[in-house]
Amino acid sequence: MKLNQIDHGFQIIQNEQVLLTHTSFNPAFFVGIGNEKIDIYRGNFSIEDSVVERIPLKYSKVIDNEIHLAYDAMTSTQLIIRLDSLSPQDSQLFIEQQNPQLNRFWIRLAAQQEDKVWGCGEQMSYFNLRGRHFPLWTSEPGVGRDKTTEITFLSDKHNKAGGDYYHTNYPQPTFISSQYYACHVNSTSYADFDFRHPDYHELQIWEIPKSLEIYTALSFLELIEKLSLRFGRQPKLPEWIYNGVILGLKGGEENSFSRMEHAIAQGVSVAGIWCEDWAGIRQTSFGKRLFWDWKWSKKRYPNLDNKIKSLRERNIRFLAYVSPYLCEDGELYPIAKAKNLFAVNKQGEVALVDFGEFNCGVLDFTNPETREWVKKEIIQKNMLDLGVSGWMADFGEYLPTNDLYLHNGIDAKLMHNAWPPLWASVNAEAIAEKGLTGEIMFFMRAGFTGTQKYCPMLWAGDQCVDFSRHDGLNTVICGALSSGLLGNAYHHSDIGGYTSLFGNRRTKEVFERWVDMATFTPMMRTHEGNRPDENFQFDQDVSTIAHLARMTRIYRHLTPYLKHLVNEASEKGYPVQRPLFVHFEQDKNTYDIQDQYMYGADLLVSPVHKQGVTEWTVYLPAQETWINVWNQQEIQGGQYITVPAPIGQPPLFYRKNSQWAELFTAIPSISS
Amino acid sequence: MKLNQIDHGFQIIQNEQVLLTHTSFNPAFFVGIGNEKIDIYRGNFSIEDSVVERIPLKYSKVIDNEIHLAYDAMTSTQLIIRLDSLSPQDSQLFIEQQNPQLNRFWIRLAAQQEDKVWGCGEQMSYFNLRGRHFPLWTSEPGVGRDKTTEITFLSDKHNKAGGDYYHTNYPQPTFISSQYYACHVNSTSYADFDFRHPDYHELQIWEIPKSLEIYTALSFLELIEKLSLRFGRQPKLPEWIYNGVILGLKGGEENSFSRMEHAIAQGVSVAGIWCEDWAGIRQTSFGKRLFWDWKWSKKRYPNLDNKIKSLRERNIRFLAYVSPYLCEDGELYPIAKAKNLFAVNKQGEVALVDFGEFNCGVLDFTNPETREWVKKEIIQKNMLDLGVSGWMADFGEYLPTNDLYLHNGIDAKLMHNAWPPLWASVNAEAIAEKGLTGEIMFFMRAGFTGTQKYCPMLWAGDQCVDFSRHDGLNTVICGALSSGLLGNAYHHSDIGGYTSLFGNRRTKEVFERWVDMATFTPMMRTHEGNRPDENFQFDQDVSTIAHLARMTRIYRHLTPYLKHLVNEASEKGYPVQRPLFVHFEQDKNTYDIQDQYMYGADLLVSPVHKQGVTEWTVYLPAQETWINVWNQQEIQGGQYITVPAPIGQPPLFYRKNSQWAELFTAIPSISS
Repeated sequence: MKLNQIDHGFQIIQNEQVLLTHTSFNPAFFVGIGNEKIDIYRGNFSIEDSVVERIPLKYSKVIDNEIHLAYDAMTSTQLIIRLDSLSPQDSQLFIEQQNPQLNRFWIRLAAQQEDKVWGCGEQMSYFNLRGRHFPLWTSEPGVGRDKTTEITFLSDKHNKAGGDYYHTNYPQPTFISSQYYACHVNSTSYADFDFRHPDYHELQIWEIPKSLEIYTALSFLELIEKLSLRFGRQPKLPEWIYNGVILGLKGGEENSFSRMEHAIAQGVSVAGIWCEDWAGIRQTSFGKRLFWDWKWSKKRYPNLDNKIKSLRERNIRFLAYVSPYLCEDGELYPIAKAKNLFAVNKQGEVALVDFGEFNCGVLDFTNPETREWVKKEIIQKNMLDLGVSGWMADFGEYLPTNDLYLHNGIDAKLMHNAWPPLWASVNAEAIAEKGLTGEIMFFMRAGFTGTQKYCPMLWAGDQCVDFSRHDGLNTVICGALSSGLLGNAYHHSDIGGYTSLFGNRRTKEVFERWVDMATFTPMMRTHEGNRPDENFQFDQDVSTIAHLARMTRIYRHLTPYLKHLVNEASEKGYPVQRPLFVHFEQDKNTYDIQDQYMYGADLLVSPVHKQGVTEWTVYLPAQETWINVWNQQEIQGGQYITVPAPIGQPPLFYRKNSQWAELFTAIPSISS
Repeated sequence: MKLNQIDHGFQIIQNEQVLLTHTSFNPAFFVGIGNEKIDIYRGNFSIEDSVVERIPLKYSKVIDNEIHLAYDAMTSTQLIIRLDSLSPQDSQLFIEQQNPQLNRFWIRLAAQQEDKVWGCGEQMSYFNLRGRHFPLWTSEPGVGRDKTTEITFLSDKHNKAGGDYYHTNYPQPTFISSQYYACHVNSTSYADFDFRHPDYHELQIWEIPKSLEIYTALSFLELIEKLSLRFGRQPKLPEWIYNGVILGLKGGEENSFSRMEHAIAQGVSVAGIWCEDWAGIRQTSFGKRLFWDWKWSKKRYPNLDNKIKSLRERNIRFLAYVSPYLCEDGELYPIAKAKNLFAVNKQGEVALVDFGEFNCGVLDFTNPETREWVKKEIIQKNMLDLGVSGWMADFGEYLPTNDLYLHNGIDAKLMHNAWPPLWASVNAEAIAEKGLTGEIMFFMRAGFTGTQKYCPMLWAGDQCVDFSRHDGLNTVICGALSSGLLGNAYHHSDIGGYTSLFGNRRTKEVFERWVDMATFTPMMRTHEGNRPDENFQFDQDVSTIAHLARMTRIYRHLTPYLKHLVNEASEKGYPVQRPLFVHFEQDKNTYDIQDQYMYGADLLVSPVHKQGVTEWTVYLPAQETWINVWNQQEIQGGQYITVPAPIGQPPLFYRKNSQWAELFTAIPSISS
């Protein structure tokens, strides 16, 4: 990194590229004071800022690798920036706050009008972030997420839950620019990255961040590799995952297991059964919710211990469910309360959080005793010792910021975004302590910087059970691609979506299209949704179960290829699902594509995500010859083509010269 | 006004009251630079600001009556404030901008948690402004104006037109505090007055305003009197107004006049007929719109000239319609274009504005030639010479701010808010030049500072044809009260409301309740609405027309009292419709009431504004004995009472000792 003095300012240059230009007339650094107002309602946040001061640091003085910044020459220094090299291509800007009153920071990085920007965690609506701003705050992602739709309107009206394009369970203050650099901000505070301006990207952070890291590379794959090293890589997938689908069933013991047996009898390859109701249920107006008291419900699953053992003998695993909260009316709550394991309010009482018609205490993971207790009593004793092989480690986005105090003494506003990786780390450590890393599979929707290191598998959260633009099937692809660029190699989703509200019901078509996509992701898992009885289920008719059976066989068939991708993820940090442009960086047409992906380097998937279509238009990247898996048609890349797209034949293409061609060619012959 | 130096700052004190405290630690003045983005869609504006700098002017130096303000002692002065007395109780703070780059100004005035605030023009949703902020920008007021209602959602979705609580045709940067002062900001730029903070009111203005005016008084009536002198008073109502209702009819000559004759035959007292379609019509998806080519349509009204004459002999006046735009496809447009009377775009071409499926040129009232032409050719020749006695002078809120250039060279962003009073002044001057002031009655919905002086009558704009909280009947009262405090003595509304969209239809009940209210306003006028055929009309059934007939007789009966109020308006600037608190300032219960009003000092009106009610709860102010007009019941004030409220008997009370008691007592005996 070079620091060049120029008239009235300086430039920071990395790899011949101007990252930032600062002059008295066009300052790149601003500091200030803001008074935010943050309200939480069931994981949906209303956030307003009142900026009291925003001071341009027009005056700069460069001393060796240090920059002193002030309002003008006569006023006191507000920030000292220290440049440090991480490698010949990578650098860090350390930021030292000189004025303790400051709680707002803005920096403008150089940009070109035509730049593309990707990342910012798991973004569900827009893959290329250019032209929009992205508040970064882990939260419920919203129901509908589009202010022009009826379901968003009704969700906003009744539950403050409609959401918008930027709401996500997993934000992260990290982005990749098409200028071949990545920028990461070391802060867990609320942030807002604004990519709307033609000349600069303005990053807003609600504290003075410790540093900015800048990585440059000659290719996007190299950038991904660097970020995956920086944030941590995941263990390889457990061997049992490759066996087929994980069936999500929550009807209690008899219902769940009999339906699984029926599926197996119909030819479905089953890797596991996931009973999120293993700890019991609670009826609310939203639908059937779980009973948040994380231990085996002998009432709902009387023979679970033996069941798990006998299933394992058949190479079928049992998966459960857990969240970082305990409901007030459960058995574990009074124990944890007595041990002071919860976050507290001003009065020192347990700070209760409303999860929708029931209240919970927040297990305070900044308290080492809480971590130990949760690991030992819940995860190890109640789950691993029972024989559970995986679980949804749900939530993590609900840490309130008002009247909530943590053991480590840090403001909840700064811990809110830090919470998901803290929660992930408790899970990962509990597993590691038992020597089961890579054997146990938990999956999370909530995330933030560091999730990569602890969470072995992302899940895309709660989509609507439909094809809607901002909350349907296609958003899962956007989520996989954006999070994948930042070092999250494994991503999957609820097959069929989750949220059914205000008359929105899952159809057979939605379910089957979702199966088609999930076949080409690292893990297949069905979900009954929030209102199972009102929504289409995998075993509701003969043709759907046959279709699922066939697709699970295709998934199994691809095991050698998927294992190859898993090795790549392990060795290089490449995600299994990749945006087209990382393999075709010369072809700018690929830079904005967010509803197709490379499943590894060799397979291109273009899931159908609209209702009632019989054909589908796909972009095939240039300088490659492609083979349509379903009919062996050969097509030159660099063009849009329209192909037949019946259910069970999601548009799928491989590179003609792929070493996996034989494996791919065999796909159409796989029957249910 | 006193300027007191205190440690690290100063205080400004008026009438023993601290208006403002400024210290280095808590500055009251901020300046900065912002880049706004203003988009217009059919009179609905999307306004976003990006504040680049917001500098607290912590350093102050007082020299006599001057204050020099800077960021700190070593940096250059940004503002000089000069204090000037307007009277022993009233002052002006002149503000001199020292740095030409500044385009944002914030000032914090001292406030107490319990303060009430009123004004800011014609506010339709909230009378007491405390606890909210109010962007001040003249625009369409919105359809629905409540993000939780279906009609607002659909209006937003289809027309960007849903609006919110603060949208108004008539904003004004002036407010009255319950601390017995009024504050007016001398600026026409976008502003946002924020009354949310317990300790201060923060006024934001998108330029450095020329000055702030502060008025103090010992009573609210005295404050109103001062403001009405400051902004100008209206001429007295024309004598013909008192004759009864003005019937809004727009079915062309035969339809309109025959329906008027039918109404008269049924006993309706008619003061005038208002045919807004006098210049022709145009069908759009919104409904029947007018043809914006302001001259008599001989096709639609073949015998209008003679009709007007014969009506006048019967003491019935004819009213028309005009707006400050000309449609591209009209006859006047090419004439005005040839004379360069329109605002232009960058290319020097007429800047066309979309009014909803048709485009218009904007008559540039900053051009003296435009003013002369509009006055002479449109208002005097086409309207007054035809015998027209009044008109709706519609619109004025649509001045675009992008790519629009005006004759006076001032930025359209600064002229946007100035436009409604400019448009009013053209109307007022045209009338005055003919010696007809006080004889001709035009009415406007758009307004801003100065409207008081030129516009003889406000009309509340386009309500929905319903009882909805934020866009129904009751909002008209809020509009009358807030605008009335700032010197607009005369206010009325479309009887029955105007906007019928998305299945929202006017009912008989809505129409009749609206008649009941309008009887106790300075002017009664019906409107067919935007979709006459789908909505209830006054002559649709026998009982409604009989009811209207009776209420017009009550209106006529009250003429002596209304004339007394008109005299008060003329002499003291008191509005005809007044908030309860101006007459009962000791009774704090009255300070938030926005659905009742004093009709002059002696009559209290509490219009029914809900569906299907048979009784109504009314607050009667303390320290007064009240008589229920309808049953002569005597009630002590200082309490809520519930009274029968059938249609035709709007809750109505007079002060027991009123000199008008005899007149009021006779009301129940008036029949249709």
